Amino acid sequence: MPESIPQDSVGLVQPQTLHVDQPLELECGRVLPAYDLVYETYGTLNADQSNAILICHALSGHHHAAGYHGEDDKRPGWWDSCIGPGKPIDTNRFFVVCPNNLGGCHGSSGPLSRNPDTGELWGPDFPMMTVKDWVKSQTRLADALGIDQWAAVVGGSLGGMQAMQWAIDFPARLRHSVVIAGAPKLSAQNIAFNEVARQSILTDPQFHGGRYYLHDTYPRQGLILARMVGHITYLSDDAMRMKFGRDLRSGRFHFGFDVEFQVESYLRHQGETFSRNFDANTYLLMTKALDYFDPARDYDHSLEKAMEQTRCKFLVMSFNSDWRFAPERSREIVNALVQAGRDVSYAEIDTPKGHDAFLLPIPEYTKLLGAYLGRVADEVRADV
Amino acid sequence: MPESIPQDSVGLVQPQTLHVDQPLELECGRVLPAYDLVYETYGTLNADQSNAILICHALSGHHHAAGYHGEDDKRPGWWDSCIGPGKPIDTNRFFVVCPNNLGGCHGSSGPLSRNPDTGELWGPDFPMMTVKDWVKSQTRLADALGIDQWAAVVGGSLGGMQAMQWAIDFPARLRHSVVIAGAPKLSAQNIAFNEVARQSILTDPQFHGGRYYLHDTYPRQGLILARMVGHITYLSDDAMRMKFGRDLRSGRFHFGFDVEFQVESYLRHQGETFSRNFDANTYLLMTKALDYFDPARDYDHSLEKAMEQTRCKFLVMSFNSDWRFAPERSREIVNALVQAGRDVSYAEIDTPKGHDAFLLPIPEYTKLLGAYLGRVADEVRADV
Repeated sequence: MPESIPQDSVGLVQPQTLHVDQPLELECGRVLPAYDLVYETYGTLNADQSNAILICHALSGHHHAAGYHGEDDKRPGWWDSCIGPGKPIDTNRFFVVCPNNLGGCHGSSGPLSRNPDTGELWGPDFPMMTVKDWVKSQTRLADALGIDQWAAVVGGSLGGMQAMQWAIDFPARLRHSVVIAGAPKLSAQNIAFNEVARQSILTDPQFHGGRYYLHDTYPRQGLILARMVGHITYLSDDAMRMKFGRDLRSGRFHFGFDVEFQVESYLRHQGETFSRNFDANTYLLMTKALDYFDPARDYDHSLEKAMEQTRCKFLVMSFNSDWRFAPERSREIVNALVQAGRDVSYAEIDTPKGHDAFLLPIPEYTKLLGAYLGRVADEVRADV
Repeated sequence: MPESIPQDSVGLVQPQTLHVDQPLELECGRVLPAYDLVYETYGTLNADQSNAILICHALSGHHHAAGYHGEDDKRPGWWDSCIGPGKPIDTNRFFVVCPNNLGGCHGSSGPLSRNPDTGELWGPDFPMMTVKDWVKSQTRLADALGIDQWAAVVGGSLGGMQAMQWAIDFPARLRHSVVIAGAPKLSAQNIAFNEVARQSILTDPQFHGGRYYLHDTYPRQGLILARMVGHITYLSDDAMRMKFGRDLRSGRFHFGFDVEFQVESYLRHQGETFSRNFDANTYLLMTKALDYFDPARDYDHSLEKAMEQTRCKFLVMSFNSDWRFAPERSREIVNALVQAGRDVSYAEIDTPKGHDAFLLPIPEYTKLLGAYLGRVADEVRADV
């Protein structure tokens, strides 16, 4: 392992691709005739395939959850703080699988890939995806890897929604569901923020009905605005205050519209970076998948009835400063599970970091997650 | 009074204009050589000019606070629920004055008016305004009306900031300051939301550096997005849930980017209406005035020292579901006043309506406001 890569990292990793020829029927009524899922794995699958953990990513995530793609990489995968040897999701004990979701822009079939029927880029014609669709597509990956049952399905935010849907739709195929900073469905305010982000992109003159790639351009400003709005909702008011306060970049007021406060500079930079690295059509799809998520809808709008389908054990975690998916949203999930008679552990982590906390190495959080998954690993060993 | 106009209305009203020839030195260092202030008045000024109340408007407000401009008006002024005969701001007892702020787009000098030096529209060249500048400009209106001392200066949100600044900058010129849903300064999150709104407008291709009027256009999409973001922050999560929940406009998912949820429809409509009625340059100026507001800055960043300048009595009111300017922001004001030894009453109103509550006829709120101002009116009578 190169010197620059930390000892507790999974090290250099390489994405793999699963090609699925079996058509995938989608909730929207359309069918994906065939599709690719790009994914990474860390750790080693044991002999009875009982130590596999599926990581589901959130809105702007992807399959590169841990380790490095090259020695010159400046940053590891997005959840490297939690995945690695000796880390909460311990790759010495677990075989960890993380796919890029369908509709994504990092290698799995999505707007940037070609429609096999026409040979053209999918672009805005890629079908609308839902959390149910993603989970179904992920079962094919499990099949291909020979994993009948995940030791755990784990995710934060939109990833937590997938962990929940797995438990409802394929109860026999997981032993634990870990739902972090999730919600049983979006609130009107959540949908409203998503709608602002979508309108930013859809009304950008460079959007061209989603066929910007035919015009050698992309809706840069729309993506920047969408990300700025999103970013505000990921941070708590306190986190922003501690990070920026009302600090002025130059120490004095300029009475103009250039950047004056540090927070403006930060948001513009975040938006800029994101706009260069993320596909607008994917962003639109992902926000709609969030809006549509509502597992209770299929069960007379009863979350308890939905949870009665499940057979696994649950760990639900929330962060007290998260106002995007506040702890009370996690408690709705916990209450439904309790009503349904399921085995659920719940932890509300005290942190000022807001929704973003699920990605951060917050000791109380990572220790609790590690302790829970340690017991899951012990079960695996006991099973063998 | 026409039949269609309610009995407890101030009835038909007409805006007036004060032309000021005395130059106004501004905080940004520039000077307005002359300016117009458009304003409305309701009620009658008493013989010793002691019963005058100044109403300061918020971000998108204007001088038309109560009554009707014509018999066909569908809606009265923006604070008609609080201003009128027998209402909390009782026009049987008070002479009520409400100006449009400088930089506004409803008749006072602003981007839509002409620079007297050049004869051209000001547009983006109109000077940046601050709350201090507005207050100073309003003293000229008081002078012109023969009002040495306001019985009270009253405002909500950005209007409340003006009521505070009046008390600090012109302590002898008001007996009461009523600060509703205010804050001693914006938080990083507040600034961040303003910045998203500004970037929406500034990056709209129809903005043309603020000279859209020369191109017979205006940044419609930018204004729509700015208002959508703003509107989300005016409503509480609960208010949105009660108003829209996750109701679908057509009862089912469409798997597309047209309006699906009621909240999307509502926000788009609010944005559309606003974009037709508000000037983009004014919106930019108003958000900057909010960002810059920080009266403690002039007093070693001590709000207590700032408040030591004041001589009036205070009523501070907040709303428990307001997350734009939460009750804790009002309590910062109250604490500084208490530390400075000032006479302050504080009320936190229990309502799910969010920041918008200050504009709404919420009984607990209007009764408390009315009771306080009733005592102010009694003082006036006792003085005579």
